[in-house]
Amino acid sequence: MSVATYTVTGMTCGHCVSSVTEEVSEVPGVTDVKIDLATGRVDVTTDGPVEDSLIHAAVEEAGYKVV
Amino acid sequence: MSVATYTVTGMTCGHCVSSVTEEVSEVPGVTDVKIDLATGRVDVTTDGPVEDSLIHAAVEEAGYKVV
Repeated sequence: MSVATYTVTGMTCGHCVSSVTEEVSEVPGVTDVKIDLATGRVDVTTDGPVEDSLIHAAVEEAGYKVV
Repeated sequence: MSVATYTVTGMTCGHCVSSVTEEVSEVPGVTDVKIDLATGRVDVTTDGPVEDSLIHAAVEEAGYKVV
């Protein structure tokens, strides 16, 4: 198990947090997603190696951006 | 048919607009809801008399406030 931290811009409300949580949670290997709306901090827990690019793609699928 | 205009605070993104649109659309007599996110302006079209308090309650149900 490991945790990777990303910063995501553009989230403005709880609905945005839900959208990002939902998309990132669907990436294979992801077991937990924690988001702090105020700072844009996204902690992604995985049970094995997960490509950064898949997390970035999931965030973009939700309509936001990893910086 | 008549249109009443309200100002709603707290909407920050398209998800917020969707929530308010959904709740206000469910008020009996409401036939159309148009929202401008930038200004918070909500135009509610009705096909008969609708109590202001029902619109206010629907907005609050969505998690926002009429000013």
